Amino acid sequence: MVKLSIGIDIGGTNTAIGVVNQDGKILIEDSIPTPPKKLNSNAAQQVSDNLLNDFITEISKTIKSIRTKINFDYEIVGIGIGAPNANYNEGTIEYPPNLPFAGKVAFCEILSAELPDIPLIHITNDANAAALGEKIYGGARNMDNFVMFTLGTGIGSGIYYHGNVVYGVDGFAGECGHNTIIVDGRLCGCGGRGHLEAYCSAPGMKRTAFELLLRDHAEDSLLSAYSYKEMTAKHIYDAAMQGDKIALEVFEMTGKYFGMALATTVHHFSPEAIFLFGGPVAAGDLIIKPIKEGLEKHLLTIFRKRDIPVLISELDPGHAAILGASALVWNT
Amino acid sequence: MVKLSIGIDIGGTNTAIGVVNQDGKILIEDSIPTPPKKLNSNAAQQVSDNLLNDFITEISKTIKSIRTKINFDYEIVGIGIGAPNANYNEGTIEYPPNLPFAGKVAFCEILSAELPDIPLIHITNDANAAALGEKIYGGARNMDNFVMFTLGTGIGSGIYYHGNVVYGVDGFAGECGHNTIIVDGRLCGCGGRGHLEAYCSAPGMKRTAFELLLRDHAEDSLLSAYSYKEMTAKHIYDAAMQGDKIALEVFEMTGKYFGMALATTVHHFSPEAIFLFGGPVAAGDLIIKPIKEGLEKHLLTIFRKRDIPVLISELDPGHAAILGASALVWNT
Repeated sequence: MVKLSIGIDIGGTNTAIGVVNQDGKILIEDSIPTPPKKLNSNAAQQVSDNLLNDFITEISKTIKSIRTKINFDYEIVGIGIGAPNANYNEGTIEYPPNLPFAGKVAFCEILSAELPDIPLIHITNDANAAALGEKIYGGARNMDNFVMFTLGTGIGSGIYYHGNVVYGVDGFAGECGHNTIIVDGRLCGCGGRGHLEAYCSAPGMKRTAFELLLRDHAEDSLLSAYSYKEMTAKHIYDAAMQGDKIALEVFEMTGKYFGMALATTVHHFSPEAIFLFGGPVAAGDLIIKPIKEGLEKHLLTIFRKRDIPVLISELDPGHAAILGASALVWNT
Repeated sequence: MVKLSIGIDIGGTNTAIGVVNQDGKILIEDSIPTPPKKLNSNAAQQVSDNLLNDFITEISKTIKSIRTKINFDYEIVGIGIGAPNANYNEGTIEYPPNLPFAGKVAFCEILSAELPDIPLIHITNDANAAALGEKIYGGARNMDNFVMFTLGTGIGSGIYYHGNVVYGVDGFAGECGHNTIIVDGRLCGCGGRGHLEAYCSAPGMKRTAFELLLRDHAEDSLLSAYSYKEMTAKHIYDAAMQGDKIALEVFEMTGKYFGMALATTVHHFSPEAIFLFGGPVAAGDLIIKPIKEGLEKHLLTIFRKRDIPVLISELDPGHAAILGASALVWNT
């Protein structure tokens, strides 16, 4: 009997569901819309409860329909879910910024009531799931101590140490995107200031681009043609590939800040390797080189001897979220 | 038969040795001088080897002499050593900045050869030992996930997670004193810039005092009477107790920077509590209050709900180093 895991990735607009085998192959995949976040209203709590129940029923239906398509002997070992503000310890989603659920939601419990034959349902945030995906199916298969940073709209981190992700006493550990790197610096999406995410995420890179444009009054830069609203990290990448000085410096600066933040993580854990995942990392050496330089510069001497590997995730970017979520099942 | 541990604390000037029972009571204590660091010379390696062997022989003799004074049935379970740049994984001291040993020294192995009847010898750095001391004898007895920061001439940290100190892949993890908190900031003793230690250690507080003196041109401050060389953290404390504005702001600023650094550690581990040890912490609320404010300010919202305890070490400051070292034996 083939053992299978179901991975669910709850994103801001879509929720992807896939059946995954122990080798990390996605056998069947489907997706449903994630209900959109509504504006607050008096009826918000009621709306939230209804949306939540409908959403979970929809997930459950989709899983049942997917299962009818499996045409061999199999056993579903469990379900793993990746979601923002997910609490592994309690199986909850708590005060998610981009989902329409209010307060603390017992997501695993409600889903389990809909699918009573599934023996195991775990949930964690996307970055922790990415770390597990790397451990179970990717480049960290033989490692027992590594960190994963995910770069995109935000910055997430997952820390794998001695057999499991570090969840901490409350289930929320591994939020290095919100480490302060510049005292009283840029406003972060979370409301704090100077966080890593405000400098080194894709939107952070755009902010750096404008910082450099105005600093150098660089009207000759290719990047000076975009409005603040329209510029994306992709524009910066394209300009850098054409040798644009400002764009190149954005990658340089982003990498150096990021490397500095990584040094702090190394000082905590002294991991075997650091894995990076996400859009900005696809720029390759343009960003990896300054990351390594920043890391080296900010590491205590004793850690420099080891030349800690900074590696790009081996998971297929298009499927990493489902794979990561499904890995929760195999790691328990 | 009473089980006993021997704790050895190798400091810059003295090496303290004590016999400790499982309740953390030091039964007998002695100390020998630590050989001083010599200037480099052609004969440095030879000098270093001789000094090392003589030093270890001296430690071994002292232990033998201490043992003759124990007048009841006992069993030495092992020896725990606290030393700068100690590597727990390998039992070595590596390139210590303030000891006269060159390169990587197999300290545990050499001592074990001198004392073949001791079944267990472990070594780690002072801050990791302090964390273990807190776990075995102090306020962290019932905790499985906490961090310890030691403040003094430098800043050390020890992280206790799931049954042991986090040593990392190379034995050196937990060096949070060297996390960069200010990009291109003050020179640190390690040669890096902007490290926590350069701001929040006792000498860091002095540097802050002068920064504030010159900023405000505060010739009326009590602290303006001291030369850069003579001022100590004690002077700052005394001035603060007399209501000196600059001195009070030093504590305020030190605490806020320190709290910010603690937030980064919480983002990594989400510990149950944070313990602080060392001279500056004796100032009590003068420094603890701004530390808590800094922590709160820089924590991601999701961690703020929990009001993470910032606690002062329960170990007797005069004996904490021996106790911490001895705890290495009980934790294995």
